[in-house]
Amino acid sequence: MSSPLSATFTMGLPSWLVDELDSLPRVVEGGEAQMALVNRLADRNWREGNGGPFAAIVVDHGTGELISVGVNVVLATGKSSGHAEVMALGLAQERLGTWDLGAERDLALVVNWRPCVQCYGATMWSGVRHLVVAGDGPELEQLTGFDEGPMVADWAAQFEARGIAVTQDVGRDDALAVYRSYGASASTVYNARGAGRIDKD
Amino acid sequence: MSSPLSATFTMGLPSWLVDELDSLPRVVEGGEAQMALVNRLADRNWREGNGGPFAAIVVDHGTGELISVGVNVVLATGKSSGHAEVMALGLAQERLGTWDLGAERDLALVVNWRPCVQCYGATMWSGVRHLVVAGDGPELEQLTGFDEGPMVADWAAQFEARGIAVTQDVGRDDALAVYRSYGASASTVYNARGAGRIDKD
Repeated sequence: MSSPLSATFTMGLPSWLVDELDSLPRVVEGGEAQMALVNRLADRNWREGNGGPFAAIVVDHGTGELISVGVNVVLATGKSSGHAEVMALGLAQERLGTWDLGAERDLALVVNWRPCVQCYGATMWSGVRHLVVAGDGPELEQLTGFDEGPMVADWAAQFEARGIAVTQDVGRDDALAVYRSYGASASTVYNARGAGRIDKD
Repeated sequence: MSSPLSATFTMGLPSWLVDELDSLPRVVEGGEAQMALVNRLADRNWREGNGGPFAAIVVDHGTGELISVGVNVVLATGKSSGHAEVMALGLAQERLGTWDLGAERDLALVVNWRPCVQCYGATMWSGVRHLVVAGDGPELEQLTGFDEGPMVADWAAQFEARGIAVTQDVGRDDALAVYRSYGASASTVYNARGAGRIDKD
């Protein structure tokens, strides 16, 4: 009798983004331009109904070569781990054929807010040597209703101690505009158990 | 011109565990028996060379029905997010067809230590209502050399505040024996950037 247990699952980009891969630039130079791409993909993602208003890219820190793009696909894939960072990092590792993105390259993860606690760890173990975020602080949770999880106060210093340089407040106003639009919509906040409704400090 | 960007990646159990799925019990009753299965899979996993000495299962909290099994597949898949918890949770979500494992079931994640910071978040967002661990504390890092990442001090209370009950110290001695064997071997500690060598408190 065959087991009912699953043995594999596949994480894929949504069709609208697959259709766009050919037309994305091969090189995106500078944090501002990189974050502008991230913010644009994040805004389209929630409007397409794939998941939250989050996107991330992996780029070569020196040249700006675009290594991977990711968006939140929790709703599209039915996998709660399918955050933008996990997608961008996993797709970069798929392309480069290694679990250590820092083994031979100097790569950056560019994402439209400080990662949630899951993606904090996912970034830490990925091998990227740079993290570029649009901001941190409570605005994301306040505007969207998402729970980002319990984070140590010295989160950025903990990255730096592990050789991951952190750059903050790149494209912050555009990121907040995406969250504001999302929060004003009737989109699904997919934190299980209504965690998004936990009282915050 | 076709894009070099990847669009999907697949996370799969290693072949030795796929071969074993048919012979696993459909029901495993009680935390001790559930953790004994987890500890056995964790020990075999590192010896097979798929990744670290970690395993996890998702079970029905009431009946003990086995919903999914996972092991660490970082080395086997080349994906740094492929920890045992991410595999067990993703495979349970694949089987049940939902990103919220608590939507219609009362499910538990059983894992052979307190999750690392990535899997702390992955567990929190998965919808499971129970977490059963063999232990927490510094022994895992001391015995294996892995970095588990920065964790808030009240990690268990943060789960409880989100409706996830935590049970600790189930099968602890067996878990420590697995870590001790792993630590005495020449296995790869796959924290990127040598994070496992960061000084601990």
